[in-house]
Amino acid sequence: MKEYRLAVLPGDGVGPEVMMEGLRVLHAVEELHGGLRFRRQAFDWNCDHYRKHGRMMPEDGLSVLRDFDAIQLGAIGAPDVPDPVSIWELILPIRRGFDQYINYRPIKLLRGIESPLRDRGPEELDFVVIRENTEGEYSDSGGRLHRGTSHELAVQNSVFTRHGTERVIRYAFEWARTTGKTHVTAATKSNGINHTMPFWDEIFREVAQEHPGIETWKVHMDALAACFVTRPQVFEVVVASNLFGDILTDLGAAIVGGLGLAPSGNLNPDGRYPSMFEPIHGSAPDIAGKGIANPIAQIWSVSLMLEHLGHREEAGLILEAVEEVLVEGTVRTPDLGGSASTREMGEAIRRQILKRG
Amino acid sequence: MKEYRLAVLPGDGVGPEVMMEGLRVLHAVEELHGGLRFRRQAFDWNCDHYRKHGRMMPEDGLSVLRDFDAIQLGAIGAPDVPDPVSIWELILPIRRGFDQYINYRPIKLLRGIESPLRDRGPEELDFVVIRENTEGEYSDSGGRLHRGTSHELAVQNSVFTRHGTERVIRYAFEWARTTGKTHVTAATKSNGINHTMPFWDEIFREVAQEHPGIETWKVHMDALAACFVTRPQVFEVVVASNLFGDILTDLGAAIVGGLGLAPSGNLNPDGRYPSMFEPIHGSAPDIAGKGIANPIAQIWSVSLMLEHLGHREEAGLILEAVEEVLVEGTVRTPDLGGSASTREMGEAIRRQILKRG
Ligand SMILES: CC(C)[C@H](C(=O)O)[C@@H](O)C(=O)O
Ligand SMILES: CC(C)[C@H](C(=O)O)[C@@H](O)C(=O)O
Repeated sequence: MKEYRLAVLPGDGVGPEVMMEGLRVLHAVEELHGGLRFRRQAFDWNCDHYRKHGRMMPEDGLSVLRDFDAIQLGAIGAPDVPDPVSIWELILPIRRGFDQYINYRPIKLLRGIESPLRDRGPEELDFVVIRENTEGEYSDSGGRLHRGTSHELAVQNSVFTRHGTERVIRYAFEWARTTGKTHVTAATKSNGINHTMPFWDEIFREVAQEHPGIETWKVHMDALAACFVTRPQVFEVVVASNLFGDILTDLGAAIVGGLGLAPSGNLNPDGRYPSMFEPIHGSAPDIAGKGIANPIAQIWSVSLMLEHLGHREEAGLILEAVEEVLVEGTVRTPDLGGSASTREMGEAIRRQILKRG
Repeated sequence: MKEYRLAVLPGDGVGPEVMMEGLRVLHAVEELHGGLRFRRQAFDWNCDHYRKHGRMMPEDGLSVLRDFDAIQLGAIGAPDVPDPVSIWELILPIRRGFDQYINYRPIKLLRGIESPLRDRGPEELDFVVIRENTEGEYSDSGGRLHRGTSHELAVQNSVFTRHGTERVIRYAFEWARTTGKTHVTAATKSNGINHTMPFWDEIFREVAQEHPGIETWKVHMDALAACFVTRPQVFEVVVASNLFGDILTDLGAAIVGGLGLAPSGNLNPDGRYPSMFEPIHGSAPDIAGKGIANPIAQIWSVSLMLEHLGHREEAGLILEAVEEVLVEGTVRTPDLGGSASTREMGEAIRRQILKRG
């Protein structure tokens, strides 16, 4: 019997709605495999918590979460709470505090889903983006001068350390090697951004030399974004800085059918801290409470968690069930052109898992 | 008789090939309109110049160019010359030295071209990106510490001034107003980049208040990139920082048929300095010398130049001729699925102009 402690942060907006389906799917997996148990504990750390207590999470939030084996996050954010609060006091502190330096994001067209790109099928849209998740362009270093005058200016410092850059690039190559991939693409912009990006390129070259069996391609971020549209089939593993990875993965989600389908894992690969799994989509206040959000990104995030914890078979089972339901095609949430509710979509997947198990 | 002085920088790779067609088209316009004359002067400032003289342009390059009314640039870059040389010693000094603070980039699906996006036609793909072109993320401010040690790090400072930010945002609103548009979208990332981007948002809000008739949308850059794929029809004018505008316009080029079709204008709106017009594409060393590069981006750049100089009718004539040739469909360069040469493509457009004139 393998027992894990799972921290559940449903968050705001559609977060709790999709989280519910993720957890029901997890429960189905537990039912099938007597040897696997997740002891869940839910935390109401969200914008409501902020409204009540003036903070997104308690002061000792991180040390509470630290004892868990994994974290499932729904979505965070509300129209009346400024981003600097909701994001900078919850998501980013967890990513950084738990040294979740890998943001792992599959870009994979599921069977049954039509890409908005003409004539692109599942064989041509299947790669991963490995995003740096703790430093780079997202640093709180910077500030303002001459506030309120016509000479006002703001500065933001991107900080790339050798430590931070090497480990994410190395992870990308290792991931390629262990999954049998032969091609790693790096997002750069060293033709325009002349300090940090040449440094990134240098380290990419060094790490590439340690992996002679793997072909590499270094592409400027502007051209790379274009390639996601014009020839996505060339990618196997894309490694990118925090900001570039952020942009590429939303774009990646778009070409494989939308944000409702896009999961992510914030990984602490050395296992010293819990990793966190979350949909790429936000809290979608416009549809919150209607029960029509697509739960697949959250359900897939549960699959990523199982994979990360070493339960590859169960992870695969979930994703196959999702694809089977999509191929069957009658149960679809509105974002996929159907009229199913969040619950109906989740339930169809849960049933499919139990049927296959 | 209106006479202009035009500086011609063919550049590297396919640059001279496409430039030739741009200039032949310009010549056709001059033939039709006796009252318009461009006195061209060509400059061999490119990577060859660097190999021979150790610099991309002479020391007094900028002051030489300063006397011209406009600059046509082909493409710059060669595999054996590092980007920091080719770009930072030619393109960027011109953009900055001549205070070309607007990079104007139409994202428009030409008639006769198929978008890689399923079911998107010319009515749905027609907007402009106004990109900041002198500061922001492209600042040479920054450097490295602890070189060669495991503690090495690189820092790059994004610098957003009120002056620089206000004028590009104001330009976007003014452009919208004078062209009858009612919607301006701003690219931000204030949820992750917490000094410069909130400053950008603030100024966007201020300038928007001066234009009550224009609706605004502030979108995070990741979501915005996704929207270029999922609902491009919502955009009329997109205003973006230097880096975000760079990424969005390559992506924009991709959704309207590729880089071979994408022009840009580096504008100094107050007219104190010459503006520069160039294709978005690079020097494409892989196809250079083969005579198969698509000259349309350069030809369209000639059209943008005419528009900028106030010759709207002639500008329109060129673009119509391009579209007519594309709709007719027999003459297409390989990037558009045909087998025409650069010259044949250019010639077909030139003829069409003369026919219509
Ligand atoms: C060559 C490079 C520095 C340039 C840029 O990023 O501005 C190019 O990509 C462009 O868009 O004109
Ligand atoms: C909410 C925001 C700060 C976050 C990011 O940019 O990392 C989100 O877009 C994501 O991709 O997880």
